[in-house]
Amino acid sequence: MTHAYGATAAKQPLQPMTITRRAPGAGDVAIDIAYCGVCHSDLHTVRSEWAGTLFPCVPGHEIVGHVTAVGAEVTDFKVGDVVGVGCMVDSCHHCHPCEQGLEQFCENGMTPTYNGASEDAPGHTLGGYAENIVVSDKFVLKITHSEDQLAAVAPLLCAGITTYSPLRHWKTGPGKKVGIVGIGGLGHMGIKLASAMGAHVVAFTTSESKREDARALGAAEVVVSKNADEMAAHAHSFDLILDTVAASHQLDDYTSLLTLDGTLALVGLPSTPHPSPNIGNLIMGRRAIAGSLIGGIPETQEMLDFCAEHGIVADIEMIRADEIEEAFDRMQRSDVKYRFVIDNSTMGA
Amino acid sequence: MTHAYGATAAKQPLQPMTITRRAPGAGDVAIDIAYCGVCHSDLHTVRSEWAGTLFPCVPGHEIVGHVTAVGAEVTDFKVGDVVGVGCMVDSCHHCHPCEQGLEQFCENGMTPTYNGASEDAPGHTLGGYAENIVVSDKFVLKITHSEDQLAAVAPLLCAGITTYSPLRHWKTGPGKKVGIVGIGGLGHMGIKLASAMGAHVVAFTTSESKREDARALGAAEVVVSKNADEMAAHAHSFDLILDTVAASHQLDDYTSLLTLDGTLALVGLPSTPHPSPNIGNLIMGRRAIAGSLIGGIPETQEMLDFCAEHGIVADIEMIRADEIEEAFDRMQRSDVKYRFVIDNSTMGA
Repeated sequence: MTHAYGATAAKQPLQPMTITRRAPGAGDVAIDIAYCGVCHSDLHTVRSEWAGTLFPCVPGHEIVGHVTAVGAEVTDFKVGDVVGVGCMVDSCHHCHPCEQGLEQFCENGMTPTYNGASEDAPGHTLGGYAENIVVSDKFVLKITHSEDQLAAVAPLLCAGITTYSPLRHWKTGPGKKVGIVGIGGLGHMGIKLASAMGAHVVAFTTSESKREDARALGAAEVVVSKNADEMAAHAHSFDLILDTVAASHQLDDYTSLLTLDGTLALVGLPSTPHPSPNIGNLIMGRRAIAGSLIGGIPETQEMLDFCAEHGIVADIEMIRADEIEEAFDRMQRSDVKYRFVIDNSTMGA
Repeated sequence: MTHAYGATAAKQPLQPMTITRRAPGAGDVAIDIAYCGVCHSDLHTVRSEWAGTLFPCVPGHEIVGHVTAVGAEVTDFKVGDVVGVGCMVDSCHHCHPCEQGLEQFCENGMTPTYNGASEDAPGHTLGGYAENIVVSDKFVLKITHSEDQLAAVAPLLCAGITTYSPLRHWKTGPGKKVGIVGIGGLGHMGIKLASAMGAHVVAFTTSESKREDARALGAAEVVVSKNADEMAAHAHSFDLILDTVAASHQLDDYTSLLTLDGTLALVGLPSTPHPSPNIGNLIMGRRAIAGSLIGGIPETQEMLDFCAEHGIVADIEMIRADEIEEAFDRMQRSDVKYRFVIDNSTMGA
């Protein structure tokens, strides 16, 4: 019996519940969850704001904890190891993307950490708002940060990899000018990561009040996107702009800032469409609007190692399990710097 | 005095007129124009369907002809050479794109072959619907096709390079699956070029009647895009889809057919926006929507050489100068296979 927090039906608040986890199989790792980050996706899913939520729903896919048991065939992990689990717990392993370690694009559908099809009770996966979890070793990550950093490591498993992967894919590094749109859970990681990769980082925010915060996170420059003159000063100059804002907004403001062959990479899925982008902005400069989705397991491990090496963690606010609903409300108002993380020892309190 | 066809004001039909060309300067090449292709841009400009048409307007940027004089500093061309001029006649030569031979993206603005700023009378450039033209040698292309192919070479200077450049940029070749949307002036060149590059080419058309034509042009498969089942059979399979259709249409139909890291490359500028594209289609598969604009001078020469080597020319219908208005009407109805080309010897008739 595992204490968890979840919702039993659409439009119901989260409540304490008990769930069962499968007994670890030969390839499984059992993990006592120490901390779990709170992602916007958790809220969208548990509130049925996206189609297809299965109940009971236990969200959470920014999981860190300690190994309590391993199956007979598991060689990479042992009891006591500090590990993480992100947005996926399985995939087909044999399609073209899986063979490249890009399980997030599995052609047969990767299994998300919560709300995915599962043979385990209750027939779908249950996530990290729980005391523990059992996961195939292929989807368990090693964490080498120090123990006192663990809570702040949790958000790396979604917010971290979601920004790291496109930054790497579009070759962020010294000599590159990279924009980060939105300074929230994803964006604040994007600023830290792109800066650590050696790029000249410019943060875009709608609020003057975040200017100093963005600098503190590592941005070399901060642009308040409502200020047309400030925006225009950066025309034709960005190799990559990583746009973390899911709310519908004008993409042309950013495509016009890209240099030749530059890319506007979107990681947020708007619930209402963005205004249709100006195709002339793409034609003039051979620019692209692209999408990116988390990252594969090998790249997630690479990101964790990169962060440990560079001393990078998320900026977090720790909460108890019984404060999740309040955290959801504040997250919706962007009233958090920059990620809530649940202390999972409070699950059964 | 040069005979030409142009418009003297917005919404006026083309009419015979005389214009003057500058005397060739030290770096100039004077060209007797043999043939000039008729491009949709010609119509848009001369009808003032785009902003900023300057009158008198002499369109035409698919020019082939023979050199009649060269300036003292010109070493690459001599009298009698067969040459071409495309969409540009000048650029700044020193910006980052120009230094890479990507003059079409000149940061200081390339000079289009017609309707661009010019020191020559009448203060703006006049294009290829004329008996002759004088052009800086840096923007003159060598043509090695045989003399009897010349008329059909003309459309390579715009329709050819506009499709060749994105095909090359997104690495069309053996083992790649490439879609071409629209079988018109641009699309028919795209099919020929992508096939010659060794790709598996699939043509998309809205009309059942074009199925056999597309095969004859070199498409391995033809999909009627209104047929949802036919479209679905190609889901997740294209490395590149080159979309030549300028009319507003649903881009999601094509982004969903791209494989991992695939690109939908747009070369048409819609006069009314496309429906806003589904960002989920981009995120799932790290796909991109990009734009492309003609090609630089080095790549245009490469394209002409590639076409000569592979025996590629456009499929054309030759017209006299006094048939241009009729050709415009037919072009608007897509009633041409696949490009009208003016016999410029009829300019003064």
